[in-house]
Amino acid sequence: MAISPYILTEKDFVAQEKLQYPFEERGLQFGDGVYEVIRVYQGDYYLLDEHLDRLYRSAEAIKIQIPFTREEMDRRLHDLLERNDIQTDAKVYLQMTRGSAARDHAFPEGVVPNFYAYVQEFPRNLEALRQGGAVHAYPDIRWDYCYIKSLNLLPNVLAKQEAKEKGCFEALFHKDGEVTECSASNAYLVKDGKVYTHPTKKNILYGCVRLRIEKFCNDLGIPFIETPFRLEDIKEADEMFSSSSVMEIMPILKVDDTVIGEGTPGSITKQLQKAYETDAGIKEANSIFHKVQ
Amino acid sequence: MAISPYILTEKDFVAQEKLQYPFEERGLQFGDGVYEVIRVYQGDYYLLDEHLDRLYRSAEAIKIQIPFTREEMDRRLHDLLERNDIQTDAKVYLQMTRGSAARDHAFPEGVVPNFYAYVQEFPRNLEALRQGGAVHAYPDIRWDYCYIKSLNLLPNVLAKQEAKEKGCFEALFHKDGEVTECSASNAYLVKDGKVYTHPTKKNILYGCVRLRIEKFCNDLGIPFIETPFRLEDIKEADEMFSSSSVMEIMPILKVDDTVIGEGTPGSITKQLQKAYETDAGIKEANSIFHKVQ
Repeated sequence: MAISPYILTEKDFVAQEKLQYPFEERGLQFGDGVYEVIRVYQGDYYLLDEHLDRLYRSAEAIKIQIPFTREEMDRRLHDLLERNDIQTDAKVYLQMTRGSAARDHAFPEGVVPNFYAYVQEFPRNLEALRQGGAVHAYPDIRWDYCYIKSLNLLPNVLAKQEAKEKGCFEALFHKDGEVTECSASNAYLVKDGKVYTHPTKKNILYGCVRLRIEKFCNDLGIPFIETPFRLEDIKEADEMFSSSSVMEIMPILKVDDTVIGEGTPGSITKQLQKAYETDAGIKEANSIFHKVQ
Repeated sequence: MAISPYILTEKDFVAQEKLQYPFEERGLQFGDGVYEVIRVYQGDYYLLDEHLDRLYRSAEAIKIQIPFTREEMDRRLHDLLERNDIQTDAKVYLQMTRGSAARDHAFPEGVVPNFYAYVQEFPRNLEALRQGGAVHAYPDIRWDYCYIKSLNLLPNVLAKQEAKEKGCFEALFHKDGEVTECSASNAYLVKDGKVYTHPTKKNILYGCVRLRIEKFCNDLGIPFIETPFRLEDIKEADEMFSSSSVMEIMPILKVDDTVIGEGTPGSITKQLQKAYETDAGIKEANSIFHKVQ
């Protein structure tokens, strides 16, 4: 999926082929920054406030001062869609690093954060959302503060790559058998009509879609229980799914060799996918429940 | 300390003002790379083999294929010093990322790693090495694989910054009270003539200077005991010190409010500093033991 021509930076729009950074950039040398990926449906942001809440929270946690207000950020991100004339389904990636400075672990002084945000067309993967897929269990070797959406993503990269090599769409992190989340999404287990997921402690990301799933469950009268489940609980699960802004609500049919429930997307998972589509304003023709003639 | 004009890359030398990277660089978006900092004394590398051993080990651990052999890397790094006409004390920073590619957690295909190495003059800090300094205890929130010298350095950045704000030269990481190492160096405690340090498990970096300290201890008949010590052991310590290629062997005089021993550099620490200078071929005039007239 091609990136749209104009990239928003902390100063102005830059043509993508011109956006370069010096070798002494703190993102490049320390991963010293935070990021977000935001979904756009038919030209409109979905869960923008939730993403911006998290962005400002992440930046504050690592003491990066975002050089413009929430309102200003909101306005600029809307300008990004307009400037690139985005009318379709898309996603926006944005990151903010502490800036460019001579290498030293401690924070540099008098340096302005480097910010960029780009948009790329990104159609929903209807086939994957309908069918679901397999995940691969991987030890959660990450740092303690995964609630910060930081650029220190090496463990996620290694986990995702191993999952891919095993034909899985995600890696399911577990700490000594206790499931935390996936490498780029939250993880859920359904048993006896109840949804279980890891509580929002510092060691998982507070997913924006996760927030909505909690609301959907409340609306639908499905108990949403923030209690960690374990790898051995998976054998007894009726359903499993993952959630993220990029992958939405994905049915998990297998965890390595363990088939979940009937090995097909479960009914609660599908109810939540439906609630997601309604919430995101997905049109009938683009719904995963739309029957192709 | 200014960076010397010519920077070595995977292709050739580049003038530093021209060395830039696209926004879609895996170092910049994932911290997906490894690095080393190597000391140079009077124009000669110190512990180059040890650093290259570790570089290749780190790269292998995260499955980055370094595009040239050890011998070729060695030759190129010597060319770097020659090209910049380095005759003095200096340090070389080098890093290798998985390369530039469209953002996706999994490894990109057909992409060449991005490599750069620069050199900067770096005189020994004789005053600091003679006097020592204080460190600040900080929770070890890092990932599980700190033996990999990766670009995921955000926890180290946060720890080092907090230490600096408290007037300390380093942060002393501890996991629930068990000391692992410092934010950019290894940590040691001396008690009853014996040196204690964390064993080389996956959660600490295998320091190149640490390797030499083990040898110096053996040569000097000082027991070198790879057993973790705890924060509460510090009150009973006779001496403490840290080691790294950048800071060499630094006496630790205080851990926050706890004064170590007499609050001055200890005798075993000084013996090891002396052994270091001999090993590194430091000239008398540049020795920390050289009495200024």
